[in-house]
Amino acid sequence: MATALPASAFRDRIEAVRQELAETDADAAVWFGATAIEYVTGFAHIQTERPVVLALTRDRIEITVPRLEVERVDPNERIDTVHHYFDYPQGRPIETAVEMLDGLGAESVAADADGAPGVMGYEGPALSEFVDVETQSWVDRMRWEKTDAEIDLVRESAKWANLGHRYLADYTEVGAHPATVSQRASMEASRAMLDTLGDRYVERVRGSGPVHAGYISGEETALPHGHTPNERLSEGDVLVTGASANVDGYHSELERTMFVGEPDDDQRHYFALMKEAQDIAVDALGPGVEVAYVDEAVHDFFVEQGVADLAQHHVGHNIGLSAHEPPYLDRGWSEYDHVEADDTVIRPGQVYTIEPGVYTDEFGYRHSDTIAVTEDGVEWLTFFPRDVEANTIRV
Amino acid sequence: MATALPASAFRDRIEAVRQELAETDADAAVWFGATAIEYVTGFAHIQTERPVVLALTRDRIEITVPRLEVERVDPNERIDTVHHYFDYPQGRPIETAVEMLDGLGAESVAADADGAPGVMGYEGPALSEFVDVETQSWVDRMRWEKTDAEIDLVRESAKWANLGHRYLADYTEVGAHPATVSQRASMEASRAMLDTLGDRYVERVRGSGPVHAGYISGEETALPHGHTPNERLSEGDVLVTGASANVDGYHSELERTMFVGEPDDDQRHYFALMKEAQDIAVDALGPGVEVAYVDEAVHDFFVEQGVADLAQHHVGHNIGLSAHEPPYLDRGWSEYDHVEADDTVIRPGQVYTIEPGVYTDEFGYRHSDTIAVTEDGVEWLTFFPRDVEANTIRV
Repeated sequence: MATALPASAFRDRIEAVRQELAETDADAAVWFGATAIEYVTGFAHIQTERPVVLALTRDRIEITVPRLEVERVDPNERIDTVHHYFDYPQGRPIETAVEMLDGLGAESVAADADGAPGVMGYEGPALSEFVDVETQSWVDRMRWEKTDAEIDLVRESAKWANLGHRYLADYTEVGAHPATVSQRASMEASRAMLDTLGDRYVERVRGSGPVHAGYISGEETALPHGHTPNERLSEGDVLVTGASANVDGYHSELERTMFVGEPDDDQRHYFALMKEAQDIAVDALGPGVEVAYVDEAVHDFFVEQGVADLAQHHVGHNIGLSAHEPPYLDRGWSEYDHVEADDTVIRPGQVYTIEPGVYTDEFGYRHSDTIAVTEDGVEWLTFFPRDVEANTIRV
Repeated sequence: MATALPASAFRDRIEAVRQELAETDADAAVWFGATAIEYVTGFAHIQTERPVVLALTRDRIEITVPRLEVERVDPNERIDTVHHYFDYPQGRPIETAVEMLDGLGAESVAADADGAPGVMGYEGPALSEFVDVETQSWVDRMRWEKTDAEIDLVRESAKWANLGHRYLADYTEVGAHPATVSQRASMEASRAMLDTLGDRYVERVRGSGPVHAGYISGEETALPHGHTPNERLSEGDVLVTGASANVDGYHSELERTMFVGEPDDDQRHYFALMKEAQDIAVDALGPGVEVAYVDEAVHDFFVEQGVADLAQHHVGHNIGLSAHEPPYLDRGWSEYDHVEADDTVIRPGQVYTIEPGVYTDEFGYRHSDTIAVTEDGVEWLTFFPRDVEANTIRV
């Protein structure tokens, strides 16, 4: 049971970005993105209007944070020096970061952006007003392939997602409110995870629990990004669920199409189509396969079945620290200008959601599973039953 | 009881951005930001790697969306034409938007950014590769002052936040798990809001409820952005709470410092200091006052009391569609390069959180209230009792 990344993971990551830095003329690497900063150092923070700036040189790692992050980042042994400004805009965040770079002797940097992101109304100067900046996306690219230690965390996430999903199914009945069923399943599964893991649980969320399970219902399922309606469940409803758990920052994705009461023939038909499309996608997935091929295989199947117009999105995406990450399982992947020639194939360590959907005027039908690509095949990380019987609520 | 923006709100906003556009040489205004697009049109979507691009000319409003948003945006009467690409990267989102601009005869645009934001690994071309682009932040600035209709929604949010907070207090006891208390309060308050509002509730959330209430406890309160620990509550614990509700996209913020059992003298002392600082800030707040002055007044008080080193952030921020919005109640506000000279004073319609905090080595002490600035003073929108007795859980 792995519930936190080992220290060696960060040593490896720091070593890897130092190698990238060595191949440039820059004196330091710089990151403004919260996820990249967490990836390199293990220091997690909420990205707000208050910039956080990480700097890494051949032999030092320093960071500039707002005052309110000082006590959280100070114990981090990977960070040699913590600089801070009081708040935004007072204290001038970027100028504070520039002083840090000056202290490091960094006149030229390879940064993930030329300044802090414009989150929550933040505005500020470009870093290139002060030092030479070339942009890099080393961490973004490194995140595509997960190590075994990272996959262990996604696997652990999938376990608790499964429990949340079990509770969703158990609490679902005619007359129940979809929001209340969702929130109750999240509460109970979170509590089970917290009580099971005890000291091994890494605190990650604020005023809530680590497991989220819930669904959209009825007509809203016809929208891939539908909302939970304020309407009690009734016989004949279709549900599209979602469950995940935060395990040291890593996520899995589990979604099921469920029926309240016996599905009718139409519903069985579209469910079967969707499930076959998912099988086709998983069969296509594997190391060395073109990223685009998985989506093409499903598209070909939909065309053959005459339902291509019922698809509304590609087959899936990578998942890890973020809920959606590249590569995207999209049949346009190979031709996209921003994809390097040797990044068009699927590699071991990539973790994909496989979630082809079929959307009629009435309802949506979509399962999503989280599947790791191994050296010689794939491993299903999510494991809630996919068949129609297991996903039918008896009324 | 206002639970949704009236149609006139959007007419006024569209009129206002058309006036801004008329003062430029641009043929069209363009937005990539989800919140700005929602503000102008009422079409709300989750910002992902799939760009959404809104274009507005003197007489038309058109939008480019991924396939999966088509059914949600189509019924929107304010949008004349919906263009779509299938997915990212296939379908080439920006190129699709450029075709839309071409159809509108727009060779030069005033846009909120020169391309879609790099969310979830999105990469794509700059818009300026295709048309002349000048940047504008009209909507960002318009959002600072809320109309009465918007403040009505924040007021409604504050009501349900209050219920969530009441449940938090009611369910808190020695031995309770902070995550479970938080999730139970969110569930019960969400259900009450949904059942009370009925048809008037505007669906906004997915797999959860519209009310969120929760807290951090114990040592985590010493961190302004602390996490909920996996540790049952015990006598002597300090809690820092947070509660809000989503009402047609608008938010309020309610936070309280609470005690599990009778606070000791030290805890009473810091609680009183924090509460007096909040009183000072609210007394300072008002139309025509310098934004910086509110934070200065609290800072002066902390210096006088010898506790300036226990502050970790400025006094508060604007709130509305986003949880944090400018202006920031920060004593550096007037001098910041990105603030226009006539934007240094507080204006009627701005809605601020007032939340000065005091952080010792052991615990944090912070209330947050949401307060609207009126023509001649202020109006408290949140209303949970602030005194120590009401915030002490008897054990």
